Amino acid sequence: MTEIKATNVVWHHGHVERGGREKLLGQKGCTIWLTGLPSSGKSTVGFSLEHLLVQQGRMAYVLDGDNIRHGLNKNLGFSAEDRAENIRRIGEVAKLFADAGIITITSFVSPYRADRDLVRKLHEEAKPALPFIEVYIDTPVNVCEERDPKGLYKKARAGEIKNFTGVDDPYEAPLKPELVLKTAEKSLEDCVAELASYLQKQGFLPA
Amino acid sequence: MTEIKATNVVWHHGHVERGGREKLLGQKGCTIWLTGLPSSGKSTVGFSLEHLLVQQGRMAYVLDGDNIRHGLNKNLGFSAEDRAENIRRIGEVAKLFADAGIITITSFVSPYRADRDLVRKLHEEAKPALPFIEVYIDTPVNVCEERDPKGLYKKARAGEIKNFTGVDDPYEAPLKPELVLKTAEKSLEDCVAELASYLQKQGFLPA
Repeated sequence: MTEIKATNVVWHHGHVERGGREKLLGQKGCTIWLTGLPSSGKSTVGFSLEHLLVQQGRMAYVLDGDNIRHGLNKNLGFSAEDRAENIRRIGEVAKLFADAGIITITSFVSPYRADRDLVRKLHEEAKPALPFIEVYIDTPVNVCEERDPKGLYKKARAGEIKNFTGVDDPYEAPLKPELVLKTAEKSLEDCVAELASYLQKQGFLPA
Repeated sequence: MTEIKATNVVWHHGHVERGGREKLLGQKGCTIWLTGLPSSGKSTVGFSLEHLLVQQGRMAYVLDGDNIRHGLNKNLGFSAEDRAENIRRIGEVAKLFADAGIITITSFVSPYRADRDLVRKLHEEAKPALPFIEVYIDTPVNVCEERDPKGLYKKARAGEIKNFTGVDDPYEAPLKPELVLKTAEKSLEDCVAELASYLQKQGFLPA
């Protein structure tokens, strides 16, 4: 055994409670879990929200493919097992960030209900429980496919990419998301404002 | 493919640069990597530093066995492969926290040089590079063994725990750590003050 966590318990004193950091930051830590089809607009919404919050002096941080798939999860592939582990690890990291008092925004397709529900459970089981805000970026597949900035739908339709969510792999929409954002019907600004307003009403941000 | 990071790149705009968050927090993100034998005092030093910093209005967060081994790394055991993966994942998470502008403190035995060097490399390769501060908690094994708050050395000596660092598994001391703290020769307050002073001199904290 390299690391035996129990050795730590007796020794250290002066733990900083979550509330201490939250008071410092003037906000409450939470995880905003964006889910939706490829090209549905998750990252656009996520990064715009982050930008808005940081401009307002709030601590927000986005976890997305860029900083996760190339780092923590670079040893995971796309098997069913690895996909589940991908989301589990992201969920655990989001939980750590939320525990640190940060408005944590995750931007991943995360197509399966079971995986997202597991992450919700992780947050609920934290002591004290951490807020988990599931946000369904509800953009019709035809709109996503028209956007298709990297031509991935095209490749999937041509059979060059297999198991592509929305083409030949299912997307399981959330049954009870905290928020639904229809990016095809609303402007980006309105979507982001709705999210920010939700955070304020829930008391995660100062009024 | 569930998640194709490249889809994100074209779409989102308004990324928050690391400097934006650092300006907000009035500090610079970095990883303080505490390494040393079991019961050497890593967590005591780490949590005391966190406490001091948060009291001073700084954002600090400790990653340790409590929040990692029971969460992100709960699916890892103690094989050579799993030990390396344990440290790699912690290193990647520390890198994310440091990128968010946080004074990130990790408290793990992390006995092998190769594992720690990999984490250092991860930080150096970040764009821009992230500061990695290796701190050797240099406590003689006999002192650790006297402390032994959970009786783990005793169990290891009795053969009840196998491959216990410091007893029947090697600890590879850092060759060029940024800081060495001798907890058997100095008070806890002095050790923590030395660390805080180092952070200030390096410009991670305001003077």
